Amino acid sequence: MLSAEIIGVGDELLYGETVDTNTAEIAASLRPYALTVRRTLRVADHLETLALEVRRAWEGARLVVLSGGLGPTPDDITREAVAQALGEELESDPEMLAQLEALFAQRGWRMPEANRKQALRIPSARWIPNPRGTAPGWWVRRDGKDLVALPGPPAEWRPMWAQLLPQLGLPPRPYKQATLKTFGLGESRIAELLGELFQRSGPVQVGTYAHTDGVAVVVRGEPEAVDRLVGTVRSLLKEALWGEDGDSLPTLALERLQARGATLATLESMTGGTLSALLTSVGGASKVYLGGLLAYHPQAKAHLGLPAEGMVSAAAAEAMATLAREQLGATYGLATTGVAGPEELEGQPVGTLYVGLAGPEGARSRHYHLPGASREVLRQRAAHAALAFLLGALQ
Amino acid sequence: MLSAEIIGVGDELLYGETVDTNTAEIAASLRPYALTVRRTLRVADHLETLALEVRRAWEGARLVVLSGGLGPTPDDITREAVAQALGEELESDPEMLAQLEALFAQRGWRMPEANRKQALRIPSARWIPNPRGTAPGWWVRRDGKDLVALPGPPAEWRPMWAQLLPQLGLPPRPYKQATLKTFGLGESRIAELLGELFQRSGPVQVGTYAHTDGVAVVVRGEPEAVDRLVGTVRSLLKEALWGEDGDSLPTLALERLQARGATLATLESMTGGTLSALLTSVGGASKVYLGGLLAYHPQAKAHLGLPAEGMVSAAAAEAMATLAREQLGATYGLATTGVAGPEELEGQPVGTLYVGLAGPEGARSRHYHLPGASREVLRQRAAHAALAFLLGALQ
Repeated sequence: MLSAEIIGVGDELLYGETVDTNTAEIAASLRPYALTVRRTLRVADHLETLALEVRRAWEGARLVVLSGGLGPTPDDITREAVAQALGEELESDPEMLAQLEALFAQRGWRMPEANRKQALRIPSARWIPNPRGTAPGWWVRRDGKDLVALPGPPAEWRPMWAQLLPQLGLPPRPYKQATLKTFGLGESRIAELLGELFQRSGPVQVGTYAHTDGVAVVVRGEPEAVDRLVGTVRSLLKEALWGEDGDSLPTLALERLQARGATLATLESMTGGTLSALLTSVGGASKVYLGGLLAYHPQAKAHLGLPAEGMVSAAAAEAMATLAREQLGATYGLATTGVAGPEELEGQPVGTLYVGLAGPEGARSRHYHLPGASREVLRQRAAHAALAFLLGALQ
Repeated sequence: MLSAEIIGVGDELLYGETVDTNTAEIAASLRPYALTVRRTLRVADHLETLALEVRRAWEGARLVVLSGGLGPTPDDITREAVAQALGEELESDPEMLAQLEALFAQRGWRMPEANRKQALRIPSARWIPNPRGTAPGWWVRRDGKDLVALPGPPAEWRPMWAQLLPQLGLPPRPYKQATLKTFGLGESRIAELLGELFQRSGPVQVGTYAHTDGVAVVVRGEPEAVDRLVGTVRSLLKEALWGEDGDSLPTLALERLQARGATLATLESMTGGTLSALLTSVGGASKVYLGGLLAYHPQAKAHLGLPAEGMVSAAAAEAMATLAREQLGATYGLATTGVAGPEELEGQPVGTLYVGLAGPEGARSRHYHLPGASREVLRQRAAHAALAFLLGALQ
């Protein structure tokens, strides 16, 4: 199979001041094509090194994609490195220079001298226009291969790449990907349930990924085989399944409330604001989500009319949900109480969670033991558990 | 200068299902040594490719570090690849096998057959014990070079690496790093203020990194030169400076409140829970932070006794802060109101924020125009702005 090489350029990627997610995203975008990606590189702002790596990549690959190093500063060396690697000379393109000057003039500025280098290209490079920045990209087609140089910021390179990729004429591969989202089952339990369906190679591959909103089961490969497998997996995981592909728990919960003409209020203890932060992360949440209360200190609990003792219990979770509903005049009240750590509380271990839900039909609750390496992960899992409980109740 | 090669192993790193931060963290840990890191690699679970990359790396480098691929599944090929690359044979170590079996026995399980491969090593490898997992690491010292193979999970490799690194006898380099944390100034304004001090090469380098808690100015290089430069930078950025190195805004704010014997309550609108989530992310926050209210929908505002109109204003922010303080019986009340988007509100643009603070000495507020590409970034910036305002007021 033909191969693709992907190179992220910049010292900040090497040392993690900026986490390189570009190379992985570009690799994933190549999945529908019959190209293997065997490695990705992050290379320093060092001309010799980058030129060497580009030369090596170009020798063996059908496609080389670079991201970063197209800015105007002396650190930005991608243009020079590609020119060296491909044995061509950089030339200034008067048309691009005029475009860049016009871009600055539009903003009422004079173009700094440094930006002149952004109009340099090698003879075999075509420009890839950048509608969101000053750094245009390069598309080099030579010797039956393609080399693409993109800027580093995702907001800039994503639209450029999305438009260019179908034009490259890469060999297609029948490919489909589906994600099934679950809450409440661990990865090993899912592996057990799926048994022999859990294939990591062959025409369909199954992967599980643990996130704070539960374990995602990703099925990828040959489209018909994916469809068949997804159907089976869906029925095996039925009870834990809450969504697919782009679905998110807060969005689904808010949509389902809105469809019923219902509103929501929260009273958080264990989640400490992370539940409301999740709900309000959805644009337009205020149509359904009225607001909430956070009782963190016993004094706050007393002010709200809650007892200071016995607060980590099913009864407390239900009382809290009822209080939230009444205080804010909402259809439903959702509450969390538990132990986020670092220490246990009321004799209950870190990871204990009670979710309470109160509505027109009364109150109910559920008890969880959440796994989690850190306080932050636990709080996030707890907030998602509350939303999964709400979503299930609304079904 | 000698060089180091760092390789992350695993398909999930290549495609970003797991975001690789290991290679960058290992690269950064080598900064106090006279070794250059010119590139880092992520390599697929593919034996031939990994063996080839390890061989290339081993040829030129003083140190090769691998992370990942030491698990028990057929995908885990780091051991085989290193053996091939270094031309040695894998042998089972009966002592390690007994240790692994004992580890499983402790948990009341029988060791699966698959885990036997974790007791394989090449003759020139010493074991690096893994106190937090079943995958021990390898330390190979040969031909005046070192190769280190670590497991992938950070909780496992970090303590292993921290203990091993000083034993490698790498050539030290005089090195120091200091971080100055600011809020309220953009990166370009800081570059302007620093002028010629803003060096990106030479004995001291200065970098700026924009985070949601403001812009961090990092100074690194030769220790005395770093100290001198930090002193100057500190005085130039004085008014915007809120902390250094490991400091965080919620931790500092809570510490300063506790030192005064004061307590805090919040009333959030724009930040939608992200402010309380930040405060409660600090373990032990409940000693100082009582809790909060979230008024998201006009109905919730009315329930709390706030007007539904004119809510994005300095007066509203102060009224909200006062209400938070009174409702929860806290020394200080902190409030946020503004426009997180996607649409403007009450004729005010996205990014508008008013922070209100009420205390024994009365109420005050501050107006911000926050930059931000997304709703989420804006909410985070707004929550940090509120904490920076509180911190400044407590000084």
